[in-house]
Amino acid sequence: MEEANKFVYMFEEGNKDMKNLLGGKGANLAEMTRIGIPVPPGFTITTEVCNLFYNADGTFPEIVREQVHEAIRKLETEMGLNFGDAEAPLLLSVRSGARVSMPGMMDTILNLGINESVVEGLVERTNDPRFAWDSYRRFIQMYGDVVLGMKPENKDEEDPFEVEIQRMKSEKGVESDLELTWQDLRELSNIFKKLIEDVKKVAFPEDPWEQLWGAITSVFGSWNNERAIKYRQMNNIPSEWGTAVNVQTMVFGNMGDNCATGVAFTRDPATGEKIFFGEYLTNAQGEDVVAGIRTPLQVTMEGSIRWAKTNNISEEIRKRDYLSLEERMPEVYGELENIYRKLERHYRDMQDIEFTVQNGKLWLLQTRTGKRTAAAAVRIAVDMVDEGMIDKKTAVLRIEPSQIDQLLHPAFDPQAKRTVLARGLPASPGAASGRVVFNAEDAEEWVENGRKVILVRIETSPEDIGGMKSAEGILTARGGMTSHAAVVARGMGKCCVSGCGSLRIDYRKREISVSEITIKEGDWISIDGSTGEVMLGKLDTIPPGIGGHFAQLMSWADEFRKLGVRANADTVEDSRTAREFGAEGIGLCRTEHMFFEGERITTMREMILAGDEKGRRMALDKLLPMQRSDFEGIFREMDGLPVTIRLLDPPLHEFLPHDPDSSREVAEELGIALEEIMRRTESLKEFNPMLGHRGCRLGITYPEITQMQTRAIIEAACRMKRKGINVIPEIMVPLVGKKEELEMQRRLIEETALTVMSENGMKIDYKVGTMIEIPRAALTADEIAGSADFFSFGTNDLTQMTFGYSRDDSGSFLPEYVEKGILDQDPFRSIDKTGVGKLVKMGTELGRRANPGLKIGICGEHGGDPTSIYFFNEVPLDYVSCSPYRVPVARLAAAHASIGSS
Amino acid sequence: MEEANKFVYMFEEGNKDMKNLLGGKGANLAEMTRIGIPVPPGFTITTEVCNLFYNADGTFPEIVREQVHEAIRKLETEMGLNFGDAEAPLLLSVRSGARVSMPGMMDTILNLGINESVVEGLVERTNDPRFAWDSYRRFIQMYGDVVLGMKPENKDEEDPFEVEIQRMKSEKGVESDLELTWQDLRELSNIFKKLIEDVKKVAFPEDPWEQLWGAITSVFGSWNNERAIKYRQMNNIPSEWGTAVNVQTMVFGNMGDNCATGVAFTRDPATGEKIFFGEYLTNAQGEDVVAGIRTPLQVTMEGSIRWAKTNNISEEIRKRDYLSLEERMPEVYGELENIYRKLERHYRDMQDIEFTVQNGKLWLLQTRTGKRTAAAAVRIAVDMVDEGMIDKKTAVLRIEPSQIDQLLHPAFDPQAKRTVLARGLPASPGAASGRVVFNAEDAEEWVENGRKVILVRIETSPEDIGGMKSAEGILTARGGMTSHAAVVARGMGKCCVSGCGSLRIDYRKREISVSEITIKEGDWISIDGSTGEVMLGKLDTIPPGIGGHFAQLMSWADEFRKLGVRANADTVEDSRTAREFGAEGIGLCRTEHMFFEGERITTMREMILAGDEKGRRMALDKLLPMQRSDFEGIFREMDGLPVTIRLLDPPLHEFLPHDPDSSREVAEELGIALEEIMRRTESLKEFNPMLGHRGCRLGITYPEITQMQTRAIIEAACRMKRKGINVIPEIMVPLVGKKEELEMQRRLIEETALTVMSENGMKIDYKVGTMIEIPRAALTADEIAGSADFFSFGTNDLTQMTFGYSRDDSGSFLPEYVEKGILDQDPFRSIDKTGVGKLVKMGTELGRRANPGLKIGICGEHGGDPTSIYFFNEVPLDYVSCSPYRVPVARLAAAHASIGSS
Repeated sequence: MEEANKFVYMFEEGNKDMKNLLGGKGANLAEMTRIGIPVPPGFTITTEVCNLFYNADGTFPEIVREQVHEAIRKLETEMGLNFGDAEAPLLLSVRSGARVSMPGMMDTILNLGINESVVEGLVERTNDPRFAWDSYRRFIQMYGDVVLGMKPENKDEEDPFEVEIQRMKSEKGVESDLELTWQDLRELSNIFKKLIEDVKKVAFPEDPWEQLWGAITSVFGSWNNERAIKYRQMNNIPSEWGTAVNVQTMVFGNMGDNCATGVAFTRDPATGEKIFFGEYLTNAQGEDVVAGIRTPLQVTMEGSIRWAKTNNISEEIRKRDYLSLEERMPEVYGELENIYRKLERHYRDMQDIEFTVQNGKLWLLQTRTGKRTAAAAVRIAVDMVDEGMIDKKTAVLRIEPSQIDQLLHPAFDPQAKRTVLARGLPASPGAASGRVVFNAEDAEEWVENGRKVILVRIETSPEDIGGMKSAEGILTARGGMTSHAAVVARGMGKCCVSGCGSLRIDYRKREISVSEITIKEGDWISIDGSTGEVMLGKLDTIPPGIGGHFAQLMSWADEFRKLGVRANADTVEDSRTAREFGAEGIGLCRTEHMFFEGERITTMREMILAGDEKGRRMALDKLLPMQRSDFEGIFREMDGLPVTIRLLDPPLHEFLPHDPDSSREVAEELGIALEEIMRRTESLKEFNPMLGHRGCRLGITYPEITQMQTRAIIEAACRMKRKGINVIPEIMVPLVGKKEELEMQRRLIEETALTVMSENGMKIDYKVGTMIEIPRAALTADEIAGSADFFSFGTNDLTQMTFGYSRDDSGSFLPEYVEKGILDQDPFRSIDKTGVGKLVKMGTELGRRANPGLKIGICGEHGGDPTSIYFFNEVPLDYVSCSPYRVPVARLAAAHASIGSS
Repeated sequence: MEEANKFVYMFEEGNKDMKNLLGGKGANLAEMTRIGIPVPPGFTITTEVCNLFYNADGTFPEIVREQVHEAIRKLETEMGLNFGDAEAPLLLSVRSGARVSMPGMMDTILNLGINESVVEGLVERTNDPRFAWDSYRRFIQMYGDVVLGMKPENKDEEDPFEVEIQRMKSEKGVESDLELTWQDLRELSNIFKKLIEDVKKVAFPEDPWEQLWGAITSVFGSWNNERAIKYRQMNNIPSEWGTAVNVQTMVFGNMGDNCATGVAFTRDPATGEKIFFGEYLTNAQGEDVVAGIRTPLQVTMEGSIRWAKTNNISEEIRKRDYLSLEERMPEVYGELENIYRKLERHYRDMQDIEFTVQNGKLWLLQTRTGKRTAAAAVRIAVDMVDEGMIDKKTAVLRIEPSQIDQLLHPAFDPQAKRTVLARGLPASPGAASGRVVFNAEDAEEWVENGRKVILVRIETSPEDIGGMKSAEGILTARGGMTSHAAVVARGMGKCCVSGCGSLRIDYRKREISVSEITIKEGDWISIDGSTGEVMLGKLDTIPPGIGGHFAQLMSWADEFRKLGVRANADTVEDSRTAREFGAEGIGLCRTEHMFFEGERITTMREMILAGDEKGRRMALDKLLPMQRSDFEGIFREMDGLPVTIRLLDPPLHEFLPHDPDSSREVAEELGIALEEIMRRTESLKEFNPMLGHRGCRLGITYPEITQMQTRAIIEAACRMKRKGINVIPEIMVPLVGKKEELEMQRRLIEETALTVMSENGMKIDYKVGTMIEIPRAALTADEIAGSADFFSFGTNDLTQMTFGYSRDDSGSFLPEYVEKGILDQDPFRSIDKTGVGKLVKMGTELGRRANPGLKIGICGEHGGDPTSIYFFNEVPLDYVSCSPYRVPVARLAAAHASIGSS
């Protein structure tokens, strides 16, 4: 199709595959023209001209000028209009159009071709002087701003034309532009032209050709304006691509009652239902439909009737004031219906179209893939497969993994009015409203009394878990995306906004101050865990929707993906949720969360406060049956699937009381001197607990803990196996940095397991592996792999240590880092491929080289992040593990990754 | 020299180069024999036999037996004695001897060849029944234990022979073995033999040949005893090396008054002075000289006279009771003098010799390189170069870098009696005695009042610096080798023992309890920073000795080394010390220490507590002249040498008051509400400050700090340059993890520097570089190198993050890790080559590849550790930087590394 020395393509000469040459918009307009859709005629000046233009210092070769000339002549013939002719003027729009959309970055000029004589002709021809003069006024303003450079560079300065409009309105004592008369608009046109002459010392061009070349030059020139350059840098768009320029005949929906303009979706963008859905206005311009000044009408009769019902409008009134396009212009509607069907079939996706009816003639101005809700996206994709329009792979790729998260959680009604008070981190998705309480005990109590609460804390700690469970949502002033609050909330599938630094929380006064507002205990607030917004008052929510379409789509995703998807789950309930969401096992079961509940924490404290191994063993003996029963439940739930259980990880001081009152309680409960408890707590205190005595370091200094946990796991496995459950336990040693650590722990685990198995007269197939979460472990993975059946990258800690960022403290600089562009994104959210990712790759390669049978997964927060999953698929790992509520996201992302890399 | 099928070498057939075949001892005895030193004749059964022995299940080929037989015949002939002959019995020792010394790991049997008839003969021949029976008794005991396996395997059980001796002594009512008569000893011999028969059901062998083969079998067998195997594993000695067996004629120094035994050094092992120095006893056995039962006498007359003087002994008494060997046996002495000269010339090093005089005949039993103090080592090496005995390279290699540290600090008099109370980490070398004080203020006050103090703290913080300066030494209960106390003390060259966990420090009561002892404020204690020992009372110290010999040796070292050596120095005094010790520049000047003194801390706090940039800038303006004057002093001191200045690094909360009282003071001083100070302090608090808002993260969120510091540096540089000083500033950005951080800081530095230079009308050549101390920085060093003129590895932090060890908290598990063999050593002391070292190599390679002009150093604590320096030389880096007092150590270690790798 491409020809040498052909620089101008009429729309009928191009097609949708010529984006490189014609730009996205040009190719699309050509495509519509090609398939017989009525598009206002026009032509495209190719992207090659953009390069020629820059190579020739902003001038055009004669051949381009000739081809443009010729194209205009063709338009004139086709439309029966003449460029610059007062009787039947051809009016044009001139727009940019690069290979990929760069919305709002480059210039646009409309109504080009009007001048003093043309405007008079327009008045006569349309008998609508206001239309004519407004069109002229708009043209002068746009051309002045864009081509002649009247628009101030400083954004804070006002557009000089707008200043004049304001002045005129106040002179005339009117509020709206619409109230200005055609005489006012004529006067404005003159004022505008005078202004341009005064400032730019040039007369406003009367010659349409001069206007045209001015506009074309300006549009090509805008390819290299500052905004566009910055946008290209940010989006990695090569500057050699250049932009095309589209010159198109103007059509007007505002030339009388046989004119109209509207937008429509080929399916319902909210639900995905297969109904044609659109709105229009008669005698209006495109913007009017969306501007909300007049109430737009429904395109279809069915839609109109439904709309009237919802708004309590009688059929009589409807027929008088709110007639549908279908009823008002049946022929036009009939044509529109054919066109939308054709477009959807052609593009094989739901389309968002813009149309204009000028004097009874329908023109399509645009078609593009329609934006839709996640629910609609899923339904449309599945329906289209059923309709034979697309294949499964396409359907799977149509759904953005990040999008479906909203299907799994309640969301605020999009119609609800939001008064945003503050903004924190979107730590755990979902929406929640409740009364403010400031501590976990209150949360539990209030909820028992039938009230809904939002737990508001400066930060949360393991002791708050009960309250977090009871609350509708959690809001914290400190802590990042992987703070305690965020991690636990995500695990619970509970909405959470964390690190909302602008809140000043006063526990004593039981109030929050933010800006000038004070929120007291018991006041209603709403938090949106998907956006991080905190709002005053109670907002309506809509429930999650994971129906049949969703399940269908997910099953297709599973056909494509290569990565396994497991869940991080610590309880029977989590395990059940995980399995429902399609998890193929548990990738991380954190045993420490089990120790915070009820009497367990007391026994745990007894163990920690014991002065010697004997005392510890006694306490551990009490913990054993509790821990064993947890594992039994989880094994039962995960029948037939692997369960990776991580041995005790957090530093022991996390289990001890944090204030004198609780210390006193504990002292009484355990019969230990308060002084002793204080002393022990003090001695366990650490400067940097993240880098302290935790993980397998505990198991090495206190081997009895590892022994107890192993015993609990293997005993539980024996019991369940006896009941016919297929148990697949995987014991995971945390925080290994040296191979000797794993060797030692493995030996201990094997000895204990052997003892328990022989006590039970059974054999359990279990694996022993390790977290790779310390940089040194990744660097020396070949050494460590010798003692490991599996690796699981703990990318939370790995990110913390590789960057030297404490996730709990990074709130003080991370947001600024992202803002200043030092970081593309929060590395706790999406994995840092260059640094942390290098360690993951290195660890994987070294590990597999030393131990080809090694199974390798990842169980950090990144396991549920689509961008990170893409990376893990590439490494490639064997599986990802994420919180139960992220499992569907991960399944879909893994499918995308797999399709994308194949 | 080696011959096939020759398995036995007479001493006169071997030499010192035959260690692989004859073992170290055998080769050495052969060598002495070869050069004509009178060594009791003997022979060596080669290491090859060891392998033959194990391959043949513990038996010997006939040819070996024949050659041993023949060798014995030769000994008989040479000595005029006969094996097993009662009249003139040949007695033998049988000892192991591997290629490398494995002290105490394998078996030894002495006095072999005695039996019932021989012992009677000995009595007659020596006329000394006690000597004869004691020799026999000892032989039975040794042979019983070693060859016949009477020695209990369990160490806690007593040797059955010793039990009998005890019984005999209590029966006889005597205390010492020496009080037993020959009749007692004879009885014991019989008891011993009976005991062996009872337990082992074998008769004690009368046949000397049987004895000999038993002993040889046993010695070869001991190569594979448990201890030896473990020792080989630990020291990477291949088990195929095998041991040789040495069979040597016994000589006795206890056969009468014309017998003697002694040890001597060819030079003074304490000072290195070139005098022959030795001690002897007449009619004594080897052990008696060192056992301290009898006072040993001086070998030389000069030594004897000097000794008498020191001990206030008159010449008369000396001549009666303490005659030197030189006087008592002039001929023997003359021979000994010739021999020691010959040995020293031969081995080209100071020798430690053992000799025995049997009936007036001198025999050399051993010669080996003599142990010596560091001062002696230096002097001997330098003297020997002057004497033409060794070359400079050998002299440099003779001194262990770790050894010379003791030369740079005072040490306790080695004669002083130590009562060790507790043991901590040897955090900063040296020795100090002083009165105990518990806080920095007291330390300063007491010292002003003329008292010497040791500052005892649970841990130190930057606020204690004044007190640390005043104190003689610092003792802490918490913190590792790189804790605040340790790092600061090393920087000051001040003695410090850290992490002494057994101390219970009670600030309130102002006392320390340890074990049962209580030490009160004002009590004297002494601490040894080179051993970590804490002692009660006041000990005498000897001053450091870095005289002419030392300087000479260091200048030779400098000729060989390739690594540059710089110092970590923050003050003018440190800089001066560094330069005196030979630093070639400053590799790390920490600017934060400058902010803790006097009014600076107040201004610093003002800056931190300021609510906005304006307030911060006002405070920074006040800090500017102080900081500038610091830099001026340092630049002056380092005229012509580079000075690397690191921008502010620690988290801001380190500068704020830590308790309510100080907060109140600060509130008054600054006129800020106490509440505001508390709030700000609270908001700056971090969970893991190590991974928090510090380093260049501060310079990015508060660019005005970087600007002020740059201004101070460049202004100081301008002023000094104007005075003719050659300033070479290098500005170092800390804690960079992403290239964007360095880019941004570099831009800021360059802009500021440009402004200051144009204000001053001068040009300063300065460099901008970065610390590589975050794993991510090493992993992406290629990206970072683009904006860096130099890298400086901060291996302290790099170790912390790569291992995930907080140096302040690792005391809770690190010692156990080293003990259990998980870690070979504290990775903060010697760099972990496998993990952290991999990052250093990676960072260096990536950095140089991207920027070939990059200069790369290291400024962590490892910069002063010889083993680590060896590694850095290998990478290779351009320079190391360490605390001023480690500079000589580093220079020497760098020379060793360079020689070792060439």
